[in-house]
Amino acid sequence: MEKIILGIDPGTSILGYGLIKIQGKTISLITLGVINLTKFDDHYIKLQKIFLRLSGLIKEFCPDEMALEAPFFGKNVQSMLKLGRAQGVAMAAGLMHEIPITEYAPRKVKMSITGTGTASKEQVARMLAKMLHTDEKPEFLDATDALAVAVCHYYQISNPIHALGKSANSWKDFIQKNPGRVR
Amino acid sequence: MEKIILGIDPGTSILGYGLIKIQGKTISLITLGVINLTKFDDHYIKLQKIFLRLSGLIKEFCPDEMALEAPFFGKNVQSMLKLGRAQGVAMAAGLMHEIPITEYAPRKVKMSITGTGTASKEQVARMLAKMLHTDEKPEFLDATDALAVAVCHYYQISNPIHALGKSANSWKDFIQKNPGRVR
Repeated sequence: MEKIILGIDPGTSILGYGLIKIQGKTISLITLGVINLTKFDDHYIKLQKIFLRLSGLIKEFCPDEMALEAPFFGKNVQSMLKLGRAQGVAMAAGLMHEIPITEYAPRKVKMSITGTGTASKEQVARMLAKMLHTDEKPEFLDATDALAVAVCHYYQISNPIHALGKSANSWKDFIQKNPGRVR
Repeated sequence: MEKIILGIDPGTSILGYGLIKIQGKTISLITLGVINLTKFDDHYIKLQKIFLRLSGLIKEFCPDEMALEAPFFGKNVQSMLKLGRAQGVAMAAGLMHEIPITEYAPRKVKMSITGTGTASKEQVARMLAKMLHTDEKPEFLDATDALAVAVCHYYQISNPIHALGKSANSWKDFIQKNPGRVR
């Protein structure tokens, strides 16, 4: 398997992104960073920045898949609408290039990187630095969060059995989708 | 003034659109319709359809401006997140082509077409048919809602004084933005 995965942690102030390359069983860091939206007051300019910057990253690195950290619950309807818009334009950048998108809940991402769903952003960042043999210290933890969702997605696609929930439904799904893996 | 305005009523089941042409003080209907998303189960396919169809409309009709009907409150955070995403990809289609986007609350749209913020969709549709000298009866009222937001936007840009709120701030804004209109 050789794949490039773009991980995104979409926010309306800071949007984090991380790109990893998978070669066989080796994961390596391509790049990570943030789109800092705090300097723009206008809501549309923020959305446009997200779209243009992500489109640029997609054109430059040609990721095969996109993984998104997506909380499904929020404080209030207003903030969820704003977050939904930020997610929407981020997704549009991927959809435009016909890149498959998968979403992960924050808890799930933490769990897959550190083994615990309640890990801090710092713990996630330290674990990733170890895994990817890098000592890069990004200015914002949103960048490592985005990297984490890319790595989480790699685990998911390379070893879907780890990704299973505990319900019978999930097993049924898994068996249907992976007939060759069940003997 | 000659302008083409694309009005959109974004929803996660049915997305309505309406295109009008402004020549001097004459408004004429170019086209209206809906993107029916009920036939797609997958959330991403829905979002992709919105993006691709709206991009197609924008390429075909080259609108100068985009107007969006956007409720700011909803039933729950879940539905607002979904709506936000639909709005986000719709906006991305406009942002990609650098088309200015303006949002209007549903009440404001109804008010500008019928004179009352509590008008029914049918009343809005009837009023538009009269204004645009058309007897086209669209299958979905989402299409006439979208047309309504395009017409509402035309009123707004052609006669901004009607659009003012009552606060001193709005007046200040108006005077700053329209120095030639204040004597």
